[in-house]
Amino acid sequence: MRDTYVLGISMNRFGKYDDMTLGQLAYDPVWNAIEDSMVDPHDIGMVFVGNAYAGLITGQESVTGQVIMREAGISGIPIINVENACASGSTAFYLAHKAVASGQTDLALAVGAEKLFCGNTGTSLKALATSSDLSIEGRMGMLFAGIYAMRVRALMDRYAFTHEQLALTSVKNHDHGALNPYSQYQKRCTVEEVLESRMIAYPCTLLMVCPLGDGGAAALIGTKEMAERMGKRPVKVETSVLASFGFPGKDGPATYVKAAKQAYKEADVSPGDIQVVEMHDAVSPIELYLMEKLGLCGPGESGRMISDRETWFDGRLPINTSGGLTAKGHPAGATGISQVAEIVWQLRGECEGRQIKPVPDLGMVENGGGNVAGQTAVVAVHILRGE
Amino acid sequence: MRDTYVLGISMNRFGKYDDMTLGQLAYDPVWNAIEDSMVDPHDIGMVFVGNAYAGLITGQESVTGQVIMREAGISGIPIINVENACASGSTAFYLAHKAVASGQTDLALAVGAEKLFCGNTGTSLKALATSSDLSIEGRMGMLFAGIYAMRVRALMDRYAFTHEQLALTSVKNHDHGALNPYSQYQKRCTVEEVLESRMIAYPCTLLMVCPLGDGGAAALIGTKEMAERMGKRPVKVETSVLASFGFPGKDGPATYVKAAKQAYKEADVSPGDIQVVEMHDAVSPIELYLMEKLGLCGPGESGRMISDRETWFDGRLPINTSGGLTAKGHPAGATGISQVAEIVWQLRGECEGRQIKPVPDLGMVENGGGNVAGQTAVVAVHILRGE
Repeated sequence: MRDTYVLGISMNRFGKYDDMTLGQLAYDPVWNAIEDSMVDPHDIGMVFVGNAYAGLITGQESVTGQVIMREAGISGIPIINVENACASGSTAFYLAHKAVASGQTDLALAVGAEKLFCGNTGTSLKALATSSDLSIEGRMGMLFAGIYAMRVRALMDRYAFTHEQLALTSVKNHDHGALNPYSQYQKRCTVEEVLESRMIAYPCTLLMVCPLGDGGAAALIGTKEMAERMGKRPVKVETSVLASFGFPGKDGPATYVKAAKQAYKEADVSPGDIQVVEMHDAVSPIELYLMEKLGLCGPGESGRMISDRETWFDGRLPINTSGGLTAKGHPAGATGISQVAEIVWQLRGECEGRQIKPVPDLGMVENGGGNVAGQTAVVAVHILRGE
Repeated sequence: MRDTYVLGISMNRFGKYDDMTLGQLAYDPVWNAIEDSMVDPHDIGMVFVGNAYAGLITGQESVTGQVIMREAGISGIPIINVENACASGSTAFYLAHKAVASGQTDLALAVGAEKLFCGNTGTSLKALATSSDLSIEGRMGMLFAGIYAMRVRALMDRYAFTHEQLALTSVKNHDHGALNPYSQYQKRCTVEEVLESRMIAYPCTLLMVCPLGDGGAAALIGTKEMAERMGKRPVKVETSVLASFGFPGKDGPATYVKAAKQAYKEADVSPGDIQVVEMHDAVSPIELYLMEKLGLCGPGESGRMISDRETWFDGRLPINTSGGLTAKGHPAGATGISQVAEIVWQLRGECEGRQIKPVPDLGMVENGGGNVAGQTAVVAVHILRGE
């Protein structure tokens, strides 16, 4: 396997785009990623397109990626539609990385796009719920906010985390969103506002839960030679890991733990080396759970870290400097690639008002999706290094 | 890239399985493919699952493969859901082949499964129609039988093919289906019966059009060393090609032509070397069109070949000895892998009543899917060699 690099990456501002098709949402990200890469688009050898819900929301199923690429004017090469619930974009990124790493092509395009707004919130939520195993979790009537809230609730019991600590994760992510022009929400909020907003799934209130969103993102992955020609700081994909739910028994490791351990091993780094993380805050306080599962802190330490503001962009371990799913938004298929975008931009020092200083060298993405056998169905972890 | 082999392959009899879930449909094929391979299932490194319409028909979206593999009791490793309309199964096969060829894993599992029967034919047909670009072909109200019928109609004009010649393709495929225990339809029919059956899309009648179906199929792809340990004839994947619609201009090559030319080149064979073909007869007379597009005969020769019975299993160039989509059935996500199964079984001499004699050495699969920009969106071509 050879080294791969993120050459160019782009996303549009996540939001509500009633008048745009999925193809239109992906058009700018695709062409901006090509421009950012300074490659000839004719050299693209494979395309992987991540989308989770178009069939249920827009009606377009099973050739979604071909329709997106028809709109972008790129075809002839293999176009592969991939789905892995909220980790669909990360799965496209993973396959594009593997295709270049293994020499199948020198240049691969990963695209993620999703339209969740359709004029009927019930339809959108019902579509999202199909990312659980309908024969088990589905029959229990579980929605994802509920699944995540149960994990947060258990964390409160275990470590006596306070409601204020939970709320601080939302305050932080909205602070970051206010500094990110690509963020769906760019308005700060206070602990009081978070706690007083409507309860969605106890203990998670409205301002802690990621919104519905429309959006697109795209990344071009290529070789070291291509990265060195660009004139920008080369960003190497140290590793990209895709882990699945298992049958670990009640006390076995969660999918998150497996994915992170494998990623650290493959990248030959320790959790303490990571300087910036984008993680899957479908509800913002789940950060306190994920920090521990990903090995970024010891048991129960995450509460103190948020109280001490260590995970703000100017803290010791910045988390979700993009605003995270909570503020930046979560158009499922686009999310994974947008998370990689934030890390690439931080490693290149292009984040302006929310830029970590000094510019970091090593960043990580965690993107989760679906629920099967009582666990997160898919967890992707990518580790990226600025050279 | 190293050589890859189809180690084990399996499918269930396609048909109508009202009481079975998608996971249950895939269970036997997965475990029979493992048994056929004589491998330890713990050695499987990656799983690719092809399914096109579960979200629209069963409700289960975006973690379909994880639910299928939960049912099969296999997880922990990367599970990737792929969609490419009626070529979804072939896309899973293509990625599994590439994963082994490029050294990502030594053993990859490709699974295809689909439930098309849901008690409402309108729902099923509507789901199938979403494999066209809804913003263009969809607005014209095109269903796939119509798209294929237009191609057949143009062929009749160009070469003065007769209705009897069209009907013979259905007679042949039903003859083959009657000899295949995995075929949905196992009943022969006559030219008269084909022509007198209900008109679906002129000139295609009911007995020329593939039925709705439920089914599953699975293949294990591994290394030469594994294939040689099995004690069965090793079946090498000479190449697996995935081509997409292009913007070729009115007179440019169809996706089929591009895919076949690339496959012959990569496998270093000429069309005349191919001894058995499974092709995508969504309507049986499209064989007469595809034979020409795939370079298996000269312009207009396919009509004479069917009249001379050259494409029956005991003819000069056997086509769709499984019964094809017309008789064997077409549960979209499962079709591509089931086509590979027929070729593997022919190359191994395991086809009993429909076995080609002498046992052939080189076979080909063509599997098409979707319609975008006025062309077939995806065409997969695999060339397999018995060693």
